[in-house]
Formats: sequence, C-alpha cells, structure tokens
Amino acid sequence: MITLHGFAASNYYNVVKHVLLYKQIPFEEHLIFSGGDEWLEISPVGKVPALTTSDGRHLSETTVICDYLEETYPERPLYPTDAGERAAVRQIMKISELYLELPARRFLAYAFSGKGAPEPVKAEVRHVVNRGVGALSRLCQFSPWIAGEEMTMADIYVHYVNKIVGSVGSEQLDWDILAQIPGMKEWNRTLRDAAITREVEAGRVANEPAFQAYIQAFIASGKSAVK
Amino acid sequence: MITLHGFAASNYYNVVKHVLLYKQIPFEEHLIFSGGDEWLEISPVGKVPALTTSDGRHLSETTVICDYLEETYPERPLYPTDAGERAAVRQIMKISELYLELPARRFLAYAFSGKGAPEPVKAEVRHVVNRGVGALSRLCQFSPWIAGEEMTMADIYVHYVNKIVGSVGSEQLDWDILAQIPGMKEWNRTLRDAAITREVEAGRVANEPAFQAYIQAFIASGKSAVK
Repeated sequence: MITLHGFAASNYYNVVKHVLLYKQIPFEEHLIFSGGDEWLEISPVGKVPALTTSDGRHLSETTVICDYLEETYPERPLYPTDAGERAAVRQIMKISELYLELPARRFLAYAFSGKGAPEPVKAEVRHVVNRGVGALSRLCQFSPWIAGEEMTMADIYVHYVNKIVGSVGSEQLDWDILAQIPGMKEWNRTLRDAAITREVEAGRVANEPAFQAYIQAFIASGKSAVK
Repeated sequence: MITLHGFAASNYYNVVKHVLLYKQIPFEEHLIFSGGDEWLEISPVGKVPALTTSDGRHLSETTVICDYLEETYPERPLYPTDAGERAAVRQIMKISELYLELPARRFLAYAFSGKGAPEPVKAEVRHVVNRGVGALSRLCQFSPWIAGEEMTMADIYVHYVNKIVGSVGSEQLDWDILAQIPGMKEWNRTLRDAAITREVEAGRVANEPAFQAYIQAFIASGKSAVK
C-alpha cells in the first residue's frame, strides 16, 4: 500500500493526493508536519509531501512523485502519448512552478506572521511573476483543459499552484495575478467544482485546526518563520 | 534538424548541449542572449536555453527539454528503465536545482556587478543550501555515478549545476559548498575530464568574449542587474 506523508494544508500535498484519487490508486495518509532524522530518511529535505511506494521506496518532490505515479500506474493517463505534447504539458507545469508558485511562496512566512513583505521583496516577486504571466498567457489553451483538449497532469498541478498565487500572492501585491492570464480564472472555477477537488478540499478543511495549532506552536517557540 | 537556442556561458544551455552530444543527435546552435516578441514565441519566459525540435515545436525549460530528448531519442539512455530508479534520479536533479542551483543563482547579479550580496540574502541562501547539502549527502551514491552504477541524466545535470554553486555560491558565502557533500568533488573532477565535457567547455570559452560584451552593454545601459 502506498503511504502519502504530509498535511492537507499543503497545496503540493494536495496535488499528489488528487493524482492518487484520479488514478484510483489505493493509499493511506500519514499526517506529519515536520520531524527529525527518521523523517529525513523519508523526505531528505524535510518537506511535504513525500511518498512511500508499495515496495518501500521513499520519494520526495511533487513533480518527481507525479511522474512516478504516471509511469507506474498508466491507467487513466495524465500525460499525452506524443512526446512533444507531453513536453508542452511539462513546460506549463514548470513555468507555473518557477514563475508563479515559488515567488508567491516567498510571501508565506510574512503572511503567517501577519506582516506585509518588505518592498524590495515585493518588487522582485512582481518582476518574476510578470514573466510567468506573459509566458502562461502564450502557452495555456483552456480548450477546455489547460494544455488543450485532454485533461493532463498540468490541470491538477496548476490548479493547486493557483491557490497560493491567487491568495497570498495577490494579497501581498494587491494585484489579481490570475486575472492577468485570459481564461485562467474561469478554468480554475471548473476545476474547483470537480468531485475529486471537492474531496481534496474537504480534507484540507478537516486538517485546518491541526495545521493552525502547529503554526501557532512554531511561532510561540520563538523561531522566526521569516528568514 | 534540431536548433539549440542560447549561449554557451549558460550552464543550463550546456546541460542540453551535453545531452545532445552524448546521444549523438545532430543539432545546430543559434546564438542568442535575449530578444523581443519573436524570441518569446520560442522561449516564452525569454530564457535560455530553448530548443526547436526537428518538427518545429519550440520548447523551453532545461528539464523539460532533457525529458523530451530522452523520450524522442531513446538510444544511449540517460534514465534507468525501472520507474523507481528513474524517480531516484529525478529526485537528485530536482533537489540540486531547488536547493543548490536556484539559491546560488540569486548571487549572479551581484557577482556581475562586482558587489557582495547583502547579509540577509546570504543568510537566506545559506539556510536553503544547507538543506540541499544534507539531502544530497543522503541521496548521492557516487558508485561511481551520482545515482549508482549507471551514468544518468543526473550526472550531466548536477555537473553543470555545480559550476555555479562551486563558484558564485562558494565565493559569496566564503564556504566550499561542494566539499560538504562527501564524494561530490571527486566525482565532479571525473565528469570534468570526460571528452564531451571538454568539448562543451571549449564552446563556453569561445563564447566568453561575446558574453562579456553583452553583460558590459547591459550594465552600461543603466539597467540594474540587481533587482
């Protein structure tokens, strides 16, 4: 049986969970926020999500896990069969990761601390996100799926990336980032209303009190969430 | 014929060039540093490298291009056939990208401007790199290749990532980063002495005057390289 390690407030955790549910792969969830050496054996950077495969291999990094699941469980495919089209799907995912998600994520610690980010950080993030917005406006199809006529891994991945971009990113910059990409918000709503997305969201809501308690304990420990 | 767009001072450009040479795929090089709308049609974020496939599809993002080349030209494979082992290879690449390369890259603009990075940036980078060093110390095999007994994409990818980590990263932090990962520097030297690596390096050296002229013109234009 596959074990998914992590917590449901993490949008990356939810990407993997959505893929598992979509592919109807049996799995169990192991709730963990952080840990010591034993946890690093499973997730060498100490991040969530991590996955233990049915034959006992530990894997971390969301896109690595997604590719593994696709290759090991090819039923209900999430990548096109053509290598060029597959690359187009991966390009959307990668640009969304590097130019929307990771920059928006820089605001997370400020958001948890209830502070606004310093202006130089905002300027840097705005610059990077602007490049991502331009690129995704060129690449995304929304016809009706993000990479064309078929639903792919990019639909799942970008939907959860957008959660942090659309909330933390937009709030800190006072800028409706997703509205800059024609068709993105409408597509996002369709994804949000799908049955699996609602199941994943219910898991996130159920985990919210535990997550908030973890964050409050972290702040009370005197460690700064802002490095 | 495949076209590789970019310039040889870019370590990511050299990853793709190395893969093309290793797989003995015919290609031509198109020297470009930056460009306008036409360039964004090829590389939607405006970055190098980009690749135009033999059937005219434009692709950007190094790992996307690497996967495309592997899937389209399976001869001289650079990923293991087992999905779990393939995931282990990708995990090393991804952690090396997120926890060594991208943080070290934050120093590039300061290095070009001849300035030291501000202390808060250094502290942030040191923290992230430290996590990457711990993770790669656990994951890298060097037996004799980075992921085990076979040479893989991770050997090529991490070797070029290490160039920026070992120079810009170490200089700005006054810290021999690669020496923290047991076996990394010895493995790096073996890679450096391989015939294809020497060919790629000769290309980099030949491109250096054009690259320096581009950087000087950029600085003289009054745009700050440091955002």
